[in-house]
Amino acid sequence: MRLGIVGYGNLGKACEKIALDDGKINEVCIFSRRDNIKSPYSTAILSQEYIFKKNCDVYVLCVGSMSDLTPLALSLAGKVNTVDSFDNHAQMEKYAKQMKQRAGKGDTLHFIGIGWDPGLFSLMRGLFSGILQGVKPQTFWGRGVSQGHSEAIRRIVGVLDAKQYTIPISNAVKSVREGSGDNLKDSEKHKRECYVVPCEGANLEKIEEKILTMPDYFAPYDTKVHFVDKEWFDENLSGMEHAGVVLANGKTGEYSSNMEFVLKLENNPIFTASVLIAYAKANYAMSKKGICGVKSILDIPISEILIGDWIDKVRLFI
Amino acid sequence: MRLGIVGYGNLGKACEKIALDDGKINEVCIFSRRDNIKSPYSTAILSQEYIFKKNCDVYVLCVGSMSDLTPLALSLAGKVNTVDSFDNHAQMEKYAKQMKQRAGKGDTLHFIGIGWDPGLFSLMRGLFSGILQGVKPQTFWGRGVSQGHSEAIRRIVGVLDAKQYTIPISNAVKSVREGSGDNLKDSEKHKRECYVVPCEGANLEKIEEKILTMPDYFAPYDTKVHFVDKEWFDENLSGMEHAGVVLANGKTGEYSSNMEFVLKLENNPIFTASVLIAYAKANYAMSKKGICGVKSILDIPISEILIGDWIDKVRLFI
Repeated sequence: MRLGIVGYGNLGKACEKIALDDGKINEVCIFSRRDNIKSPYSTAILSQEYIFKKNCDVYVLCVGSMSDLTPLALSLAGKVNTVDSFDNHAQMEKYAKQMKQRAGKGDTLHFIGIGWDPGLFSLMRGLFSGILQGVKPQTFWGRGVSQGHSEAIRRIVGVLDAKQYTIPISNAVKSVREGSGDNLKDSEKHKRECYVVPCEGANLEKIEEKILTMPDYFAPYDTKVHFVDKEWFDENLSGMEHAGVVLANGKTGEYSSNMEFVLKLENNPIFTASVLIAYAKANYAMSKKGICGVKSILDIPISEILIGDWIDKVRLFI
Repeated sequence: MRLGIVGYGNLGKACEKIALDDGKINEVCIFSRRDNIKSPYSTAILSQEYIFKKNCDVYVLCVGSMSDLTPLALSLAGKVNTVDSFDNHAQMEKYAKQMKQRAGKGDTLHFIGIGWDPGLFSLMRGLFSGILQGVKPQTFWGRGVSQGHSEAIRRIVGVLDAKQYTIPISNAVKSVREGSGDNLKDSEKHKRECYVVPCEGANLEKIEEKILTMPDYFAPYDTKVHFVDKEWFDENLSGMEHAGVVLANGKTGEYSSNMEFVLKLENNPIFTASVLIAYAKANYAMSKKGICGVKSILDIPISEILIGDWIDKVRLFI
């Protein structure tokens, strides 16, 4: 199996690391816009021409931002097999439709929204909903960094750098576990902790007020703002840890059933890459069987991410 | 959809309850050996002839014991669609091969080992293994009743009734969470608590010694024996609650990733029935698409247990 990795940021680098450790992947090709990247597998060029020329079996799309991912994925749809971690929940439906249209009746296979959320958490929301009829699974994220909220703070005048940690409210998690959390608002489920490095001479009170009153992002939430210096910030907040949980509590007659899926990750990109590489191998296996089209994680049997014969999988896992 | 339920013990009754509440199931037929069962849906006869005559779309097999299930499932293989909760891990491989052989090239669809373990826990062991390369997921059961161990106690002379609760050892769970529990023995993962109702005048010391020294079942384990009277036993130990967890801790470089799936069930048969009915609907949907053969839970995409179009599922769950 020859794997293409398109994009060489945190996620692309993590994919390279995991793919090189994987006995089933024979060759790794990296495509990046940067011409001075440090991987020996790089072609240092991110052009369609080069991507097609390398003729990889599957391409995992790891370009930096969502605004880069959509045109890249659409341009490859119907031409080469792809696996992406498109992660904008609000735009997912539109993206899925576009991919389906572009892939058309071609013989390529595309997996969209592969990661942990969207990804494994989507799989669990589907599973829990299918088993516990009429129950709406609840998702909590954190403790971990929200890129969007960190960015929103960095845009405030007087802010040099900032990171925002999303933290689940433990009483809300408890309510959901006990089956009484169906109507919790988003702001009742998470609190927000902001670490802000101010520019020299900036008005701290004004920055704090701007954050606390920012509609949607912070105003409805229990938000705390900490001003810290650049040195402390770089030393203590460089981690890429994240966590989350999907919960469901179903009631049949007087009896409740609790289902729960928990992730605790010391390095978010490393784990997301593990999911991408596992599903890239599944894409290869399914594509070889002649399966094509656009698939979400709900459409892919778990057996496809495992090696071995049918009966081996029965013996090992069932 | 017309659903057949074969067997009318705890599991069959729970399946009936859940199926009757399900808007997608139009008709429920119950097959039982007992001729005085209380369901209006019963045909009160468990014969192949009757099973075929009713012409259900899918039959869930809920007969009491494993010794009844194997011949029943094998006799129906290749003839009608079935979903079963075969739950003997040691015999699963043999059973899977027999079912595959019997089903042959027929056009029926058979799901084997559907429940929570085997079942959802199998799915998680497969998923965690596929994502975290080289990691062996660990399973803990309890607190809940082990039928086999309860039965072993009841066979001791002087015992009127008994129940054995399996309890995970919290330090062992902690070790696995921290990534150091790979080589734990079974007896280091669980302890056993036995509630015994002795016959009048029985020798309690002798019963306790028999339990504590019973090879495989109790001797290697931290086992506690409580003697209780029949009244207390019936009043306090009639519950059918169970629980369990599948854990995996993967390490990539210096970073660990924790995956965890937890079930806490107030009524074991009710939850097992929820899983069986969800997969019976999937069996119906897949069978209508012309899919046939013998499948384990690893082979069945989660999308099949969900209703609606592809894009609805993307919107709701991804």
